[in-house]
Amino acid sequence: MSDLLQKAKLVRATTTALATNTTEQKNRALELLSAQLKEQKTFIIEENNRDIEQGRNNGLHESLIDRLILNEERIDDMADALLELVELQDPIGEIMEEWSRPNGLNIQKARVPIGVVGMIYEARPNVTIDAASLCLKTGNAVLLRGSSSAIHSNTALVKVIHDALKQSELPNDSVQLIEDTSRETASEMFKLNDYLDVLIPRGGKKLIDTVVANASVPVLETGAGNCHLFIDETAQKQMAIDIAINAKTQRPSVCNAIETILVEKKWAENNLESLITSLQKADVEIHGDDFAVSKGENIIEATEEDYETEYLDNIVALKIVDSVQEAIDHINKYGTHHSESIITENEEHVVAFMNEVDAAAVYHNSSTRFTDGFEFGFGAEIGISTQKLHARGPMGLEALTSTKYLLHGTGQIK
Amino acid sequence: MSDLLQKAKLVRATTTALATNTTEQKNRALELLSAQLKEQKTFIIEENNRDIEQGRNNGLHESLIDRLILNEERIDDMADALLELVELQDPIGEIMEEWSRPNGLNIQKARVPIGVVGMIYEARPNVTIDAASLCLKTGNAVLLRGSSSAIHSNTALVKVIHDALKQSELPNDSVQLIEDTSRETASEMFKLNDYLDVLIPRGGKKLIDTVVANASVPVLETGAGNCHLFIDETAQKQMAIDIAINAKTQRPSVCNAIETILVEKKWAENNLESLITSLQKADVEIHGDDFAVSKGENIIEATEEDYETEYLDNIVALKIVDSVQEAIDHINKYGTHHSESIITENEEHVVAFMNEVDAAAVYHNSSTRFTDGFEFGFGAEIGISTQKLHARGPMGLEALTSTKYLLHGTGQIK
Repeated sequence: MSDLLQKAKLVRATTTALATNTTEQKNRALELLSAQLKEQKTFIIEENNRDIEQGRNNGLHESLIDRLILNEERIDDMADALLELVELQDPIGEIMEEWSRPNGLNIQKARVPIGVVGMIYEARPNVTIDAASLCLKTGNAVLLRGSSSAIHSNTALVKVIHDALKQSELPNDSVQLIEDTSRETASEMFKLNDYLDVLIPRGGKKLIDTVVANASVPVLETGAGNCHLFIDETAQKQMAIDIAINAKTQRPSVCNAIETILVEKKWAENNLESLITSLQKADVEIHGDDFAVSKGENIIEATEEDYETEYLDNIVALKIVDSVQEAIDHINKYGTHHSESIITENEEHVVAFMNEVDAAAVYHNSSTRFTDGFEFGFGAEIGISTQKLHARGPMGLEALTSTKYLLHGTGQIK
Repeated sequence: MSDLLQKAKLVRATTTALATNTTEQKNRALELLSAQLKEQKTFIIEENNRDIEQGRNNGLHESLIDRLILNEERIDDMADALLELVELQDPIGEIMEEWSRPNGLNIQKARVPIGVVGMIYEARPNVTIDAASLCLKTGNAVLLRGSSSAIHSNTALVKVIHDALKQSELPNDSVQLIEDTSRETASEMFKLNDYLDVLIPRGGKKLIDTVVANASVPVLETGAGNCHLFIDETAQKQMAIDIAINAKTQRPSVCNAIETILVEKKWAENNLESLITSLQKADVEIHGDDFAVSKGENIIEATEEDYETEYLDNIVALKIVDSVQEAIDHINKYGTHHSESIITENEEHVVAFMNEVDAAAVYHNSSTRFTDGFEFGFGAEIGISTQKLHARGPMGLEALTSTKYLLHGTGQIK
């Protein structure tokens, strides 16, 4: 039996016990894991160094090396995050709805774990602890498949998880790492419907697209963000500029940063030069349409490709539109259904934008940078869903749950 | 451009308008459709006769011919069901949750349509009206792909839908039927992620398995039901027998009928003969284990295969177990996570069974025959989900909805 199948069977066998573990037992396991991380810091760093050395030998880019690094501070952060997770409410067991039928049958809708989560991720080894802890908090078993470049780190972290689980009342086998990181094994994992209830890919667009295209196991898609800011005719000048700068430059590499600014024509006639100057002062490279080019220096002419691009960098596309409707149409054509914002004082335009823009999060007079589980107040985040089923937008602990109907009768027959 | 791609583009283009159609506009369209069905009865029956004739020529089994038939009564039933659907609450637009963040940002979670639903179904032409009307009620566009054996009926029904839509304020193109019923076109539809938000297969296990195995579009899986009744030591004798007969024989061909009865040993020692006699009086063929065979006449010896089989017929497997735990383990091993019931007076056993059995609906002292959107009081049913994501168990209108976060600010930046 392959390593994959063996481990899939191991985790699947733990689901009944895990689903009935109490909140206290799950929190105790997270506390034990937090303590073990601090205790085994030297071991983790040693193993992590093997990945880093291997990465450097393979000529890995320094930005990717940086993602790989587990130092004392990062391990402490992971350990502290576990204690914060302990404080969050356990969603499992909640009776979400309850009603009785005319025949006396009582129906409860209860929140239950999903079962087994398959996590497929790239070089960041902290995802190992992050994913495992969120799954355990919600009573889910998890099969982890990290990248070969982090295999020593991941193996070490899963050893630490097992050390903690052994001291806890949770099933020891509920977290498993697939050590074979070949493509063939990943492809086999995509089709493991008998053992996995959901696949969650975390990483770049290519990874996510591969999983979506090839998996028969249901996927929770956390997608790319080609986000827009629309500055309407009545937008307050300074608010619009401040939000544009913040949404573009505060952290350009993340999915909720904006990539294109759409500006209503009249607002542009009065204020575009100021917007351009402010963006350029903040080191933003502008790819603009003809009108934008005519209003500033050093503006690159935008092409169709610009509107399709998630730059993830200090670059923005700038386009003038005639109306809120043109802005909505542009966004629905080029957007990735992530986060979109309108700056306006016109209530009718707010309503049209909110109703007609097809995105997980639609903002009025705000930066798009708040699309995030922590900023929403969830206290945790598994990712940001850009699909329509199960969960949409920032996913907190509830996204890792399913439901079950419990029906109590007194002999009801149909 | 293929017929499929052309129609996919047509329906996709209607989603923004559909999402903003009011409840009154949607209900008016359903009323118009109800009227059109009654008005065009002769045309529908004529076209349906072509399918029936073709089916008879192709040697189609009479039970399948029966599923194909649209007569006056059935058309009236469809028309009446539409008026009942009008009465149901429109889930779209509901603000499910609302809260404010310390920075003043107000967050609303609103219920919105999914977008475009791809419906793949077998010979029953009534699904055309059923699926289209449930989608329209929830503001979804729908791409229909029925079976070649019902193509004339489906084409006629979609013509009637278009006649109704033309009189309504809903986009005319929001319901489309793919006329090319080849396998190649179905396979192409499975991968149409740019145009379809979800695929819902309705039909036999083979169809559903094919869609799940091959689709990259997210699937709402409505699955098979290998359901169990567990009669515990303390079960009331007459209640247990009545429920067994009802859950097995009231309509054996449906997914929420039971396929295996598990009986606790002590109850079996006292009451198994009565249970066997009652089942046989109701014309049920029993496939039993050794103990069951020893307690009655004409009992076929059960094999492993029996426990895996969804008979969908007047046949039941009968097995003695030592404990509630053995019953739970058997169900989790052989069940399809649909509907499971325990008959007992022991509260601890109820709790164990409810918590540990992994199924969409778990019953105590009741027949499993109530797992149904109408019996649950939803007033409509798209199907019964046996998967863990998005929706589980009977799916009402809410299963055809997604969510969207609406955020109102006053210039918030991060």
